[in-house]
Amino acid sequence: MSNVYSMIPVPQAQQIVLDHCWTLGSETIPSHEAVGRVLSVSVVAPDSLPPFPASIKDGYAVISSDGIGTYNVVGESRAGSMDSPNPAQGTVVYITTGAPVPLGFDAVVQVEDTEEVPSEKVEEEEGTMTSSDYKQAGRKNRRVRILKAASPGQDIRVVGSDILVGETVLRSGEVIGVAEIGILATVGATHVTVYKQPHVGVMSTGDEVVEPSTSPLGPGQIRDANRSMILAAAAKAGAKVTDLGIARDTEGHIQGCFDRAVSAGVDVLITSGGVSMGDRDLVKPLLERTGTIHFGRVLMKPGKPLTFATLSLPSAAPGEGGDPSSEPQRSMMVFGLPGNPVSSFACFYLTTLPALRKLMGWSNPMLRRVQVKLAQTLKMDPERPEYHRVALQWSKCPFLEGRAEHVGCDWWAVSTGNQISSRLLSARSANALLEVPQASGFLRQGTLVSAILIDDLQAMPDPDGLSLQ
Amino acid sequence: MSNVYSMIPVPQAQQIVLDHCWTLGSETIPSHEAVGRVLSVSVVAPDSLPPFPASIKDGYAVISSDGIGTYNVVGESRAGSMDSPNPAQGTVVYITTGAPVPLGFDAVVQVEDTEEVPSEKVEEEEGTMTSSDYKQAGRKNRRVRILKAASPGQDIRVVGSDILVGETVLRSGEVIGVAEIGILATVGATHVTVYKQPHVGVMSTGDEVVEPSTSPLGPGQIRDANRSMILAAAAKAGAKVTDLGIARDTEGHIQGCFDRAVSAGVDVLITSGGVSMGDRDLVKPLLERTGTIHFGRVLMKPGKPLTFATLSLPSAAPGEGGDPSSEPQRSMMVFGLPGNPVSSFACFYLTTLPALRKLMGWSNPMLRRVQVKLAQTLKMDPERPEYHRVALQWSKCPFLEGRAEHVGCDWWAVSTGNQISSRLLSARSANALLEVPQASGFLRQGTLVSAILIDDLQAMPDPDGLSLQ
Repeated sequence: MSNVYSMIPVPQAQQIVLDHCWTLGSETIPSHEAVGRVLSVSVVAPDSLPPFPASIKDGYAVISSDGIGTYNVVGESRAGSMDSPNPAQGTVVYITTGAPVPLGFDAVVQVEDTEEVPSEKVEEEEGTMTSSDYKQAGRKNRRVRILKAASPGQDIRVVGSDILVGETVLRSGEVIGVAEIGILATVGATHVTVYKQPHVGVMSTGDEVVEPSTSPLGPGQIRDANRSMILAAAAKAGAKVTDLGIARDTEGHIQGCFDRAVSAGVDVLITSGGVSMGDRDLVKPLLERTGTIHFGRVLMKPGKPLTFATLSLPSAAPGEGGDPSSEPQRSMMVFGLPGNPVSSFACFYLTTLPALRKLMGWSNPMLRRVQVKLAQTLKMDPERPEYHRVALQWSKCPFLEGRAEHVGCDWWAVSTGNQISSRLLSARSANALLEVPQASGFLRQGTLVSAILIDDLQAMPDPDGLSLQ
Repeated sequence: MSNVYSMIPVPQAQQIVLDHCWTLGSETIPSHEAVGRVLSVSVVAPDSLPPFPASIKDGYAVISSDGIGTYNVVGESRAGSMDSPNPAQGTVVYITTGAPVPLGFDAVVQVEDTEEVPSEKVEEEEGTMTSSDYKQAGRKNRRVRILKAASPGQDIRVVGSDILVGETVLRSGEVIGVAEIGILATVGATHVTVYKQPHVGVMSTGDEVVEPSTSPLGPGQIRDANRSMILAAAAKAGAKVTDLGIARDTEGHIQGCFDRAVSAGVDVLITSGGVSMGDRDLVKPLLERTGTIHFGRVLMKPGKPLTFATLSLPSAAPGEGGDPSSEPQRSMMVFGLPGNPVSSFACFYLTTLPALRKLMGWSNPMLRRVQVKLAQTLKMDPERPEYHRVALQWSKCPFLEGRAEHVGCDWWAVSTGNQISSRLLSARSANALLEVPQASGFLRQGTLVSAILIDDLQAMPDPDGLSLQ
């Protein structure tokens, strides 16, 4: 047993984690429950859309060669109901948007380019109705004046112009969002086959760590922030979550939580605390004995003691019943996050979230990295690259406001303040982790810096909210 | 009754909608259910963090004036358990990260700057242990050599340095995300008071519109994409949702759906279809009779017939029981979205989503508008501004790849293809609506164009996914 792990860079740690992700298999679920899930089977259209030549406008289906003139309205075609008029030169059919163009008609003239001719006044060729009388226009045995000649196919969507029968409308590997739910409904896919959700168990460790409900705190106690936070993050990522509680700093307690994770069928176990160099940091020793540690230190600030291991199951869970030989060997990924809440926050996003996404079937599970401008000067750390929590804001240059050379807007990274790893307020409202390079000296205001997106950029900031420190 | 509504610009429509949003009131819920909700009462810390002077390192609490030398280890302070040693010059206390610094000690020396002196060898001043023997270092009655003098306060977090008792840690109006869940736990807030969720009812209209499960389609039928899609969008936005089904194109059917919305306690009713100029477009006439239409046409492509109304309740729901005079007058917002699925998609994001956010307590409910570069030339529409669906990609210039003058990356807007409003595939994978100005001619590739974010930018695109058309 050894506590001396070589310190590896973050990209290497991320790659090791992704290399240990396996496939969870697929399941078929109702489409309305599928938002956020990833298709494991492509979806193919069983029919064309539109399934019939459809009018793009409210107006009249015409025979285009007829041209301008006054015609008998011999029928009507509405969305959902259609007469079956016999097409004949010199006739038109009233038609509504989306309705089938009757056989034999080859163009639509929008109602704005027509005038209805009241039947009793046809002979007089006067007293035409205004466009506000559209409501009256649908009746049969009326006549209408076509004011503009139509070209063949005008304002008609041909069969299959939106979706062609047999077309793949959604591909295996696509994440299902709002529009995709609509597309599934369009092609009649009431159920979809998607990758299974990973089951994530979350536990905290530490004799000093107590339930959030504890008040007042006893001597030396602090409330457990990590477990609620990581449970929320894993659930938001789309995982099933199980709360495994707080383990005291004894091997027995920690092993007990591990065992409960195994019985619950957890795929990914996330612990926090117990991975540092203290003599009661028992998570690493336990992982060394019961599984394989793939890395135990990472060159990052915060988060240096981040540990990643895999445990083989069910051999790790004796006494759970069943015949182990009859089951395929499965394994559990274990992320040993550091105990400081900001460390566990940053480590989760940098390593655990991509793993959860890969398990859920994402073909590109890494978080997006972009470049942004620094809204204030930051000191770099010569020993470790720092993942500085920032709120990205789209704005004019905040420190040269009003100067003529800065009229455009940019993404600016605004620091959330004091970055000590115990201060979770530094993660409040953060939507990105700025990658501050390992170096001496300062990154100057205005410098272009790489940032990893960890939250939605859709929302506008609270106007009373974060501003430059 | 009139169907002639003046065409208003989108920003005016958005303002009218927001002006009609009211407050839904507050409720107190368990914090672990609060992700995505907005605080209506600020959260104040009941105690300081750390609640005691806490060590930042594993090492030894010392009296800084003692300086370099060999000292008796007179006790230990671990996270969660502490001896109460009497401080005396010439003594030190073993301490772990996060543990309380015992009274009388004023600095911490990290274990890396110490050497333990095995008790049996103290006299010899040799055979010191290496840093891999940390595990042994916690025992009492040992001696340790301090190799670096400490300055007062070194590696100690003072009481309240992360959070001060009485400090507002989260403000009323803040959206609760992952980090905020951790902050709530830290300060012992197991429950939070948040704005209530709006209750959204969603219905479709149209004789041609059938359930997604319908297969094969009958003559003239199309499947209902809008209802599933808008239900998913409203749920994703954090609303409670009720599916009100499909109404046939009769006033009775549509009124029946409206009545069910009222009985269900819906705050926001979203319809699709029935707002155009056809003679069976019955939603507008019904809203005219039973409520107030605030606008009925908007200068946008797609989405021109977008209609917004408010209905006063309970007078609009006779026969629902109860004594109306005893209840405060409430009202229901109605968004009459156009029937074409892309139109309803765009109108939802541009007008309904900001309304839902405002009802949920967001202080800045508008979607974020940024500027991006156009990855391909687009034709503008001289009659209406167009909300062109695009996938924003962070990449090098896609059309000048490799040329020396374009080495940096930018946000590029990649069109989702044919934008006809019936083609919902144009919303697939879209994460922004590009604001293409109303004008003649073309917007050239590379032009900076305004875009409204409608989805998360965190995810990286599928490598096999969208590419330049």
